This record gives sequence, structure tokens and C-alpha cells, in this order.
Amino acid sequence: MKIDGVPYRTIWLDEDGATVRVIDQRALPFNFETRDVRTVTECATAIRDMWVRGAGLIGATAGYGMFLAALEASEVPQGRRREVIERAARELRATRPTAVNLSWSVERQWSVMEPLLHPSAVANDPSGDALVTAARAEAERIADEDAAACRAIGDHGLKLLVDLSERSKGAAVNVLTHCNAGWLAFVDYGSATAPIYAAHDAGIALHVWVDETRPRSQGARLTAWELARHGVPHTVIADNAGGHLMQRGMVDIVITGSDRTARNGDVANKIGTYEKALAAQDNGVPFYVALPSSTFDLTLDDGVRDIPIEERDPREITHALALHEGQPTEVALMDEATPAKNYAFDVTPARLVTGLITERGICEASERGILEAFADLDGAP
Amino acid sequence: MKIDGVPYRTIWLDEDGATVRVIDQRALPFNFETRDVRTVTECATAIRDMWVRGAGLIGATAGYGMFLAALEASEVPQGRRREVIERAARELRATRPTAVNLSWSVERQWSVMEPLLHPSAVANDPSGDALVTAARAEAERIADEDAAACRAIGDHGLKLLVDLSERSKGAAVNVLTHCNAGWLAFVDYGSATAPIYAAHDAGIALHVWVDETRPRSQGARLTAWELARHGVPHTVIADNAGGHLMQRGMVDIVITGSDRTARNGDVANKIGTYEKALAAQDNGVPFYVALPSSTFDLTLDDGVRDIPIEERDPREITHALALHEGQPTEVALMDEATPAKNYAFDVTPARLVTGLITERGICEASERGILEAFADLDGAP
Repeated sequence: MKIDGVPYRTIWLDEDGATVRVIDQRALPFNFETRDVRTVTECATAIRDMWVRGAGLIGATAGYGMFLAALEASEVPQGRRREVIERAARELRATRPTAVNLSWSVERQWSVMEPLLHPSAVANDPSGDALVTAARAEAERIADEDAAACRAIGDHGLKLLVDLSERSKGAAVNVLTHCNAGWLAFVDYGSATAPIYAAHDAGIALHVWVDETRPRSQGARLTAWELARHGVPHTVIADNAGGHLMQRGMVDIVITGSDRTARNGDVANKIGTYEKALAAQDNGVPFYVALPSSTFDLTLDDGVRDIPIEERDPREITHALALHEGQPTEVALMDEATPAKNYAFDVTPARLVTGLITERGICEASERGILEAFADLDGAP
Repeated sequence: MKIDGVPYRTIWLDEDGATVRVIDQRALPFNFETRDVRTVTECATAIRDMWVRGAGLIGATAGYGMFLAALEASEVPQGRRREVIERAARELRATRPTAVNLSWSVERQWSVMEPLLHPSAVANDPSGDALVTAARAEAERIADEDAAACRAIGDHGLKLLVDLSERSKGAAVNVLTHCNAGWLAFVDYGSATAPIYAAHDAGIALHVWVDETRPRSQGARLTAWELARHGVPHTVIADNAGGHLMQRGMVDIVITGSDRTARNGDVANKIGTYEKALAAQDNGVPFYVALPSSTFDLTLDDGVRDIPIEERDPREITHALALHEGQPTEVALMDEATPAKNYAFDVTPARLVTGLITERGICEASERGILEAFADLDGAP
């Protein structure tokens, strides 16, 4: 997507062919900084310390990390090549053990690289060029596929916004979104934001209500930043306000992302999504969830019952990184002794979801709807 | 209520009989400070600049302001006494024009004082002592009645918590509340908190989930502070989390306050209340609204349609007063250019309200329920 007119991805390979570059999301929205990632260890730090975050982007970063491992392996004696790659895979996997896309991506690189690590293959590849070339191609493929899936989500969701725009006779369509399921969480386009960017770029008048999304405020800090840089009109609201706006007819559609989607169509997403879905239902506002199929967990029959909810550090509630005299500074938002609990996700029952916007089209949030479109994923490892 | 064992009201007359003292709520929770209010102008400043806030407390403060006016009037030539009182009434009324209790309280003092301002009455009261005594008595009465109404709300609501405690076989009853409808918003006890304090003081095990209540965070800053000082177990959560807690069976009852209650039982309260009511209904959790009858506006037939919603400064969303190196400091929570909208209240339809806890008992949130208990208020000015 564009940052003040210049197209960017969240991660890319530099022209030197050996440096991975990422947007440092810790500094947003106060500063826009990119960082060089040149070693496997730096790559692990980038994931662990959340320079990058978001399911799709974590997967892509790990893919590039394995490419950096191939570069490192090409510089050691041939007999130690496998050991370097294996250690890199372990190091990357250990950064954020709960991120599904992370191990999936490392696994995918391993299946490409492993045949090139057999003694005979190593003997035929004295420079390691074949290994590096294969790993680079796979890293680029993982990133490109993530971007392509998000772009396809945008194309399918675009139709919904075109319909609403026609119904409103060209008046701006009001979309409400929660958290950051934007391009910063993926390689490009985002999931919930993909239809928004597609519609904006197609000249459809839009306005986005951006939920602040306490406690980490990814809406106010990341989604608002993205939309501003790309030029999409938007307004940040307190998380408390969505129901009121829907009651007053000021929201035409809600689109959120998903962190995990169960077989029955129940959707785990950032805490607060469930309350927006309830308000949408109470006011007849369509509620869509946009997701690449990588978020499906078809092994879980019932999302509300089975999806475990991460509890994070209460300090995310009691404290915040804020701008004080121009400098990002940690401050206390309440009495420092205040007891707090920080549930990071909630589960929205499928009955409240109008539809799932996926890279293969819009499907019903139900086992039947999901398996009609994604039968090939059922029973896959 | 108690602050670390010492009983307090939010406003009281000092032993010198001429100084009104208030808790300066701007400094909470970071500092506990009381302030002296000795003149009408200081009293107007206390209301306008929000040293005091909350419907009941604003009314009580204005009542004491009119007492300070009587003191000032007793020190000017007898012929100017009425002019001093009239100017004070205007000055106090102008502080926060939308607060219903403010003009009600000034009106009430005026009806007590006006007969003592007729030339013959003034001639019979050369020192002004009769005027001062009458105004002091009425100010104390307004404050006492506010505290008594809240205490009665506590007694009626207590029964609900006793029932829940019996059903849970003594395990702590989990109450969820939103914003600050606590004793800081009244003279004592509060409205939503009154049943909580009554139950706690009666030895019933309780735990309160306190919604942070963005953007001004009155839950995290005032309600949590109140409960901590009085010793009631509580936990602050992001506003996004209430629905999730109810879905997981972690909330036994929701109790909120009300800023205005329409004839049909619709309730205007701090933004976000509506979403909690939806979540309560979806999970079969009882949702009660505690209010003194002074919040009824029986001239409005339909709250959702008729109650106007105040829009406040978006800076309350983009910025916050926070603690930095031990000092309360204003910081930016997001990019300072972020567009934001700040709707301060929402309206919860009566169909989502299990009952209204009033000083006369618990009544149904409907025209019938309200008029059964408060027929005497219908058609009152």
C-alpha cells in the first residue's frame, strides 16, 4: 500500500540481495522507521520484539529468516551447512510459539531446503548458490502468496462496498473496523482493510470508523496511521461508541479480521469484536469477517467452547507508550497499584456473522459454508 | 464512604460554618486533595472546572454555593442583599448549563431565600442571620437528601446481591459496572455502587469488574479508586472485555447508573452502556440501572429517539492526563493529527434493562413500572 504516495510492503528484500528490510512497527504512529535485518539472529529479534507483528507478516518474516540462514550456510564449510539451517529453524520457531504462521512458514522453507542439504546435493553445490537461490525464491513466494490472498479478499469484499455505495447513491459508505487487520499485519493490503483499499482505489466514496481498540490501541495507532498514509477518510472512536453509531444509522457495514476461525464458523479476534457483532445484529448492520484461509482451524468444532483465550500482561491496560514533549514515553494511565486483567481475544459466535470474506470468495460462517469452499483443507496437516 | 478507614462525603461544611470543602476530583487517582470553597465565584469555578462532577454532587455543590451567597449578602448593605443573591444564582446556573440538578438546586434555594429578601423581611433581619440560617439548612438538606436517596438505592439493590450470593453458596458475586456512578458522583454511596457498598458492609463476598470507560476513564480512575479506598475487591478491564467475561460466565449481574431516564424506561448513560446491555441479554445476565428519581425526564416519551447525545472535545480521545515520572502530565495517545469523534453518552433501550433500582424500590423499566412508583412526579415542573 502507499505511504504518502510511495508504494510499500511491510517486508522486502533489498536490491543488494542480502538485506531484508522491515517497517519497525514499534515506533508507529509516532515515527516511521525501517530497519535492516541481515542475520538469522536479527530476524528472530525482529519477530520476538515485535518490530513486526500480525499473522501474515510473522509468517513472511520467518520465510525471509530461513533465506538469511541459507546465506549464512553458504559461508561455512560444506559439512556444517545442515547444522546452520537446523539451528536457524529452531531459533525462529522459538520467537513466538503461539503464532501458527511461523512454524508453517519455517516448515515450508525446510521442505524446499532439506533436499539440498543431503551430502550428494551439497557436493554438487560447492558455493551454496543453489541453496540460497531456492530459499530466496521460496521466501518471495510466501510473501507474494500472502499479498495475493489479501488482494483476492479485497476483490471479493469490494462487491459488498460497491452494492452499499449504489444503495447510498454515492454518499460515502460508512465502514466500522476493529483492531488492525490492515496491511501492517500482513505483507500488503491486509484482510479487513483489503476491501476498503480496493474500494478507495476504485473511486468509491468511503469513510471508516476506526475503533481505538484498547488496550494496545492498534486501531488508533496502526489502522488510523495506515488509512491516513493511503488517503482514506477515517475517524477514531472510543471502543464504547460503535453500538451508539449503529443505533443512529451511522454504520453501513462492519468488517473485522480473524485470528482463528473454527469449523463451525465461530471467529476468534481481538477482544471487543463480539460486542460489535452484537450491536450490528441488534441494528440490522451486516457484520463480515475477512480472513485468509490460513486462519482456519478445522480441528476445532466449536469456537466459543474450544478456542483458548490468551491473557496478556495487565501493564498493557494500566500503562501506555504515549507522546510527551515530542518523545515516545511510557506513562501510567491510572493508579499504578490498580488491579487489572487483560484478555486479548474473544470469540464471536457464527450466528452473528453475516459472512466470511476469503481469498476464494464470500462464504457462510458455518461448517457447510466453509467446507463448500475449502474442502481441500479438511484433514490437511 | 470510607477513604482508608476515615468516613468522607464528597462535599461538606467545615466546622467554621463558612467554608465548604470538596474533594478535588481532577487530581484523582494520582493525588487525594481537598479544596476550600469560600465564595460564590470559587464555587462556580469548582463546578465549571470539574473539581466536582456527577449529577448529584453538582446539585449539592450549587446548594452550598447559594449558602455562600447568603453569607456574602449578609455583609453588604441591606438594600443590596437581593441583588447579591440574584447574581449568585445566575453565576452558578451558567457553569454547566446541561446539568439538570444544577438549576433544580438553585431553584430550590431560591424558593427558600426569596421570601427573606422582601423589604419587610430584610428589615426584620438586619444581620442577615435568618437568611444565612435558612440557606445553610437548605444546603444541608439537599446534600442529605441526595445521600439518603443513594443509601435507599443501596438497600433495595442489596437484596439482589444477597440473592446472588445465596445462589453462589457464598462464592464472591461478580458485579460489572461501567463509568463512575459511585459516591464521587453524588454526596455519598453513589447510585450503581450503593448496592455494592451495602453488600460489602454486610459481609457479602463481592468482586467488581470495573470497565475502564474510555475516553475519560472514570471507571479506571474514579470507580477503582473508590473501591480500593473502601476495601472492595475489584479488577479493571478494557471496555472491550465485558462481553467476553459474560460469555464465559464470569459476571453475575451488571449495574450501571443513568444520566437521564425517559418515560418509556430507556436509559441514557455513559457511552458503552448499550453494548454491555446487549452482551448481558445475549448471555442471560441481569442488567440493572440504579438511579435516584431526579434523573427521570418524564417529558420524553422515547429515550432512543428523543434524548440528545452530547459530543465532547475529541482531545479527550487523542490525549490523556497520565503519570510521568510521578507527575500528572498531558500526553498524546496517538498521532496528534488523528481525526476523532467523542460521543459522551448512549441510550440503552428499556427492553434490555432488567429493572431500575430507585430510592423507592426496584421497578420495571417501562412507563407503567415508573408511574406505579413515581406517579407524583408526573406533570411536576
